[in-house]
Formats: sequence, structure tokens, C-alpha cells
Amino acid sequence: MGESIKIAVDAMGGDFAPGEIVKGSVQASRELGVDIILVGVKADIEAELVKIDIANLPIRLVEASEIIKDGEEPAFAVMRKPNSSVALATKLVKNAEADAIISAGSTGASMIAALQYLGTLSGIERPMAGGAFLQLAPKTVTLDLGANVSCQPYHLVDFAVAGSVFARTFLGIDNPTVGLLNVGAEEGKGNELTKAVYPLLKKSGLNFIGNVEGMDIPGGKANVIVCDGFIGNILVKFCEGLGRIISQWLTQELTYNLNLSDVEKVSSKLYGLMSPAEVMGGGPLWGVDGVVAIAHGSSRASQIVGTIKQAKLAVENGFVDTLRTELEKAQARISSEKTE
Amino acid sequence: MGESIKIAVDAMGGDFAPGEIVKGSVQASRELGVDIILVGVKADIEAELVKIDIANLPIRLVEASEIIKDGEEPAFAVMRKPNSSVALATKLVKNAEADAIISAGSTGASMIAALQYLGTLSGIERPMAGGAFLQLAPKTVTLDLGANVSCQPYHLVDFAVAGSVFARTFLGIDNPTVGLLNVGAEEGKGNELTKAVYPLLKKSGLNFIGNVEGMDIPGGKANVIVCDGFIGNILVKFCEGLGRIISQWLTQELTYNLNLSDVEKVSSKLYGLMSPAEVMGGGPLWGVDGVVAIAHGSSRASQIVGTIKQAKLAVENGFVDTLRTELEKAQARISSEKTE
Repeated sequence: MGESIKIAVDAMGGDFAPGEIVKGSVQASRELGVDIILVGVKADIEAELVKIDIANLPIRLVEASEIIKDGEEPAFAVMRKPNSSVALATKLVKNAEADAIISAGSTGASMIAALQYLGTLSGIERPMAGGAFLQLAPKTVTLDLGANVSCQPYHLVDFAVAGSVFARTFLGIDNPTVGLLNVGAEEGKGNELTKAVYPLLKKSGLNFIGNVEGMDIPGGKANVIVCDGFIGNILVKFCEGLGRIISQWLTQELTYNLNLSDVEKVSSKLYGLMSPAEVMGGGPLWGVDGVVAIAHGSSRASQIVGTIKQAKLAVENGFVDTLRTELEKAQARISSEKTE
Repeated sequence: MGESIKIAVDAMGGDFAPGEIVKGSVQASRELGVDIILVGVKADIEAELVKIDIANLPIRLVEASEIIKDGEEPAFAVMRKPNSSVALATKLVKNAEADAIISAGSTGASMIAALQYLGTLSGIERPMAGGAFLQLAPKTVTLDLGANVSCQPYHLVDFAVAGSVFARTFLGIDNPTVGLLNVGAEEGKGNELTKAVYPLLKKSGLNFIGNVEGMDIPGGKANVIVCDGFIGNILVKFCEGLGRIISQWLTQELTYNLNLSDVEKVSSKLYGLMSPAEVMGGGPLWGVDGVVAIAHGSSRASQIVGTIKQAKLAVENGFVDTLRTELEKAQARISSEKTE
């Protein structure tokens, strides 16, 4: 057996930090066989650890002397506080003391720490956000979901590459199909951006199947569907809001036919399937030079275990190096048309 | 009682033309008290009329000597064939022989005929498409839903005006709130387009409440939500595809708990609520200088009655003249910032 994978955990980030974060990390260490480095206020972490059995588990602590307080703008706070838990945990990855960092704190703070200490992969200006956000179509990864609001054509090629690598690594799809989100199936349809992206995707070397439309996301027509982050953000939030409304409607509608517990079960199951936050928990940031996995702010121990599992998978499968290589390949293929 | 409202009907357009179109038109004449002018191949229309009781109803026929055949590109066909049913019916409105035209034929053909014979309202380059596409939020009108894929900032002001007039006329909302679809609530958020639109909407004189997000469409946060037609098209189709998937999922999920007919009822009801085509049947084209109401291609007699009812309401409420006036007012308020 090789050396264990080491996970740096931001113990202070998240609605239920440090309690649930510490608990989940210990559980992950036991269940997944990973080494854990808990970064935060030692006294607070130790107060949690005494409640749990950690005998013989490879868990160590790193003191974070600065704290990002409620009400601080997290992204700026992390820049001003290099000794905050998320900054220190990220630096452990930078210094190769850890293979990955996970945090349930502010996504903005994690992203800024990642940019500051790890940097982006070659040709990537800022991380991408994506995932199989609709569990009703679990084999379809959509991106960008809001990290990149204004896009140049070559950005969407990067998204397509990242989505393809993600689909192979995390969904086990061999030769993922790629679709360009558009208003019609025919080549030549669309706005200025999609018209410019189409020929780039054709020569990208990816398994590009052409334009797809809105219904093709739930329909799962392609494994990777790319769009600019403005649309992606709106789609994800639309889906989330729709899930809420539909499960309310369903609860009302079924109350006359079913007993309450069955009604609750169906409604909340559907809500879960449509809630991108529920579905996408624990995904890695795409495009930064290191494994940075984000858990929801509302994560409990079990979600922390899930996020650590995703981080471990990313490390084992060389997600970052594969993404680097694939991005370079695609960028070389389309370089003649790249616009800044 | 004043003079009856006269509706010109394209009797040849639609999957079930002329039979269901004729049947629906006769029914509308009886139920709504409107005069009907059936435009099409007289022999075909008469063959349908003999099957129905039309005694004493104000129904007349106009012969269309040209036919748009299956496989013709409808928009081009209507330009080449001024004596096709949709072209002739539209000209009846132009010549004030009819107050409105309805067609279940190609939307593209109706739009081209409207542009050619009626023209657009001042400042409008092409018709807008919109409606309360999600019946789960029946008081929220979203536009543009695909007619205007690439937009300038002032286009979205036009959409906001049109949506407001529509909400007043058809939904009975006094002072409709207007939201700008965006990726965050704060002013300054968004892409180039939304950043430019925000200040225009502020000075438009409309009841602008600021940015809204994806979840605010199902949440019904504003009565009118504006976006470019690229996003609108994708949202509507996403919603439609989602409705299909969810009702399939629901059918499976409920099969163990409910009898088949109840399962079917709930699933198909939800599908209907989420299907923009079902919900928006019979809406008028917004922005053309005349009442042009589009029915779905798959319309049966009852949908034709519904479309005629919408057309009648638009005529009675002076939808076109109100829209003209309101557009001019808003355009005057923002004219200093208008960009071409």
C-alpha cells in the first residue's frame, strides 16, 4: 500500500463548524483511510475531539491564529488574513504537506485562497463551476454555473474540456459527449457567443455533438453541456426555485390521496433531486492548480465525509494533472482562433 | 350593443386544419359573440361547415388561392404567396375588415405576415414573445422568450413595457412590478447587457424593483421579468423538458402508493402546469401593429376558442394602442441613453 492521501480540512468554515467538521473528518479518516490535518483554533478543535474516539487515527492539528468573523466580506478577509484557517489549509496543499483541501466556509474565500496560493492552470483565468446539478439527469454535467459570468468563446472550450475530464473521472464515462447550449439544433443558430464557440468546439478534439437546447439538460442529451456562467447561474437557481414550488404543489396535491408521511417522502425526494446544492455537494473547484473541494455551508458530518471522498477521488485519479494536460491539448488545437 | 368584433381565422394553418379550426371558430362565434371570417380553400372549409350547425351565425368565407405546402419554409412561403390563407387573413386586419387574426399555422409565417402587412409599433424592430409560461407562477410574465436572441439594452426596456401592458390587460394587475433577470440581487451585478439595462429601467417610469434571480421566476417575485431571448428560450425549453422528466419520475414514484388513474392525474396535471406550450396557448404577438394571436400547431377546437377569446380581449382592451402609447412614453424617458 502506498502512502495515505492527506486531506487538509478548514475546521472553522461552515454553519456547524467546528463540531460537525471535526466529526466528519474523523469519520472520513476511519472510513476512507485518509490522513487528516485539521486547521483552525486548536482549543476549539480539541474541545470537539475529546468527544470522539480518535484512537490510532492519523489526525493532526495546525493552529490558525487569525479568524474570519461573521460579517466580514470573506473573499477580502482571506486576502488580509494569511493565517486564517482556509488560507493556512490551502498553503498546506501548496507546500505539498497535504494532497487536497476541503472547506465548508465561504466559496468565495476558498476560491480566493486557491487563486492566491495555488494559482490557476495554464490558460485559465478563473476557476470554473459545474456539475451534474440536476439529479434527474445524473450523467449530464453542465458548466459554467456562475463563476464566469462574462465569457469569451475560448472559455467555453475550457468548460467543455473540464466537463469532459470531470465526467470521465467522477462519472466513469469513457468518451463523454459535449453539447453547446443554444436556441436551436442547427449550426449557425444562436447569439454572437455561441456562433463563435461552435467552430472552436468542432476542432477541439472533444466528442462534440453540436448544439443542444434547454430541454436537453433534463433530457440528458449530452454528458457535458456548456454555457456562459450568466445563463448557468440563472438555470441552476431557476431549477432550485422550481423544485421548491413543485414540492409544495405536490404536497398539497397528494394530501387527499396519500398519508402524510408518504406525501412528505415523495415531495422531499423530488426537492432533493432538483436542488443543485444537495446534488453537487463536495465538488472540486475546476481550474485551480490543486485539489480544492467545497462543501456546503450547511454541511453536517456526513456531507464532510462525502466531500473528503470526492477530494480523495480527485487525488487518486489525478484530476488536476489530467485537466492540465487536456486543457493544453485543446488550447493548442484551437489556438489559431483564440481571441483575448 | 356595439358592433361585434370580427376575427379573421387562418383556416388552413395547424395540424388539424381545416376541421378543428373551423369547428373551433364556429364554437367561438356562438359562445363569444364574435363575427368570424374563415380564410382558406373554400371547398375544404365548406366540407367542414356542412358537418356543423351554423344557422344564423355571422360566419363568412374568403377564398385563399395559394397554399403553403408541407416542407416549404413557412416564413419564405408567406412572402412568396400573398394569397395564402395567413397572408390574406392578415391583410383583412390591415384593411380594417377584421379586428384581429388568429392562426395555428407556423409562428414564423404569422410573424412574417404581420411584419409585412401590419408592421411593428414605433421603435420596435421585431415582435416580442412572452407570457406567464410557468403556470405554477401564474402572475409572472417573462419575456423575451426567444423571438429576440441578440438584444441591445433598450430592447429589454421594450420588453418591460410590453410585459407590464400585458399583465394589466390579461392578468388584471394594476401596477405590475418589473424585475431584471440577473445573477444577483445587488445593482452592478451581471453581464454587460444587464449592467446597461439596469439604469434604463430605473428611469423608464415602470414599477422597477431591481434585479431578480432564477428562483424568482417560479417564486413569482415580480409580475414582469425581462431577459434577452437567448436566455428566455433556454429557460422555457428547460422548463418544458423538466416537466416531462418530473412527470415520468412521479409516475414511477407513485405507482406503489396510488392507483393508476390517480397517478396519471397528478403526473399529467404537473406536466401541464410546466409545459409552456400548454400554458401560453393563444397569446397575441407583442409589438406588431394589430392583434395577431398565435395558437399552437396542435390546437383542437377548444384551443382555437381560447385563442379567439384572447384575441377578443386584446381588441376590447385596446392592447395594441396601449402598448404603442406606453412604449413611446418609456422610449422618451430613456431616449438620451438609447443605443443602436
